[in-house]
Amino acid sequence: MEIKVLKDILGANEQIAERNRRLLDSKGVFAINLMSSPGAGKTSLILETIRRLEGKVRIGVIEGDVSSSLDAEKISERKVPVIQINTGGECHLDANMTSRALDNLALEDIELLLIENVGNLICTAEFQLGEHKKVVILSVPEGDDKPYKYPLMFHIADVVLINKIDLLPYLKFDIEGFSKAVRGINQKVEIFPISCTTHQGIEEWVSWVMANMRSSAPEALT
Amino acid sequence: MEIKVLKDILGANEQIAERNRRLLDSKGVFAINLMSSPGAGKTSLILETIRRLEGKVRIGVIEGDVSSSLDAEKISERKVPVIQINTGGECHLDANMTSRALDNLALEDIELLLIENVGNLICTAEFQLGEHKKVVILSVPEGDDKPYKYPLMFHIADVVLINKIDLLPYLKFDIEGFSKAVRGINQKVEIFPISCTTHQGIEEWVSWVMANMRSSAPEALT
Repeated sequence: MEIKVLKDILGANEQIAERNRRLLDSKGVFAINLMSSPGAGKTSLILETIRRLEGKVRIGVIEGDVSSSLDAEKISERKVPVIQINTGGECHLDANMTSRALDNLALEDIELLLIENVGNLICTAEFQLGEHKKVVILSVPEGDDKPYKYPLMFHIADVVLINKIDLLPYLKFDIEGFSKAVRGINQKVEIFPISCTTHQGIEEWVSWVMANMRSSAPEALT
Repeated sequence: MEIKVLKDILGANEQIAERNRRLLDSKGVFAINLMSSPGAGKTSLILETIRRLEGKVRIGVIEGDVSSSLDAEKISERKVPVIQINTGGECHLDANMTSRALDNLALEDIELLLIENVGNLICTAEFQLGEHKKVVILSVPEGDDKPYKYPLMFHIADVVLINKIDLLPYLKFDIEGFSKAVRGINQKVEIFPISCTTHQGIEEWVSWVMANMRSSAPEALT
């Protein structure tokens, strides 16, 4: 019986996600769902992306957290429109929460929407929000065995960012072995090693964003 | 309606957890539920604890993972009895999974049972397993803002271990500010900074384990 309830929830969620995606497309907004463990660097990546695309792309942000508005405060210092969703205990964002956030953003002023999901490497993978691409951040200190332990997250990712590579001298992390494990469950994934501290790899990430904005929503760049 | 279902699940879970605790007490086993984000160091802490207590305390381990048996393999190399639970997608251990694991352990040969929960800083906090103490590991690279974002986990913890303090020279992490934030939501919590790499703080952690084994299950040390 629990399984039936869960199926209903997921079915309803997909319908709302589809509606979100149509709304975003109609406004020419390209949306990315950013997922990771707590503290892997989602907010830092958003801040880096804003920095690199300032004056080039109009960005909006949705911040998902169980509690607090710490991240939204950091984003709003950069003069970027941001909506904080507090899930109040829920371990992931869903399409309905996203829909309410979209209602509170001036979408006509946004070309790129970065959605920071709740810090969770499991539950967030199951819920469509209406995004165009799913980006997973795995940070070096978490270890290179994570694709084996959390396969769904790496299976659904369009991009995997290996963050905090500036810590590689102090930790054991096999980038090649990790990448091979990810590709073993997801042949189409793109993988970029990055550091939001030293800015390594950010250029490649931002190029990927720009290229995908163009190909999936041409009206966003007019 | 979903709320009602969840309540039923949690109610049933607590009953099974209570049964697990009675079973553990009857066998003189002291059980710790270890929780953290992915990659914060649960397995490393278990390996360190085994190393320090070798020949002094008979340890058993339950390893919880969505997928794989990597951690159980590492533990079993130390000649310690270990059971791997693969949740197959579920984001946390529950009392029923724990019960089945207990059925497969020779409890009369165990004094200290370390239960490594699934890597998840949200969902695992809601489910009693039948443990005597809840220990939360937060690692330095995750950042010192986590008590504000994941308050339930820090609220229910008996002990918070700040792991990977060997990385403090390379990262911004305010141990005092973090500890104050944790105590703001949990006055009774004990906090130990540790490193499983340099072994700093492990002595204090192991002393806490020994003292609590004695006070809560005296027959465990006969």
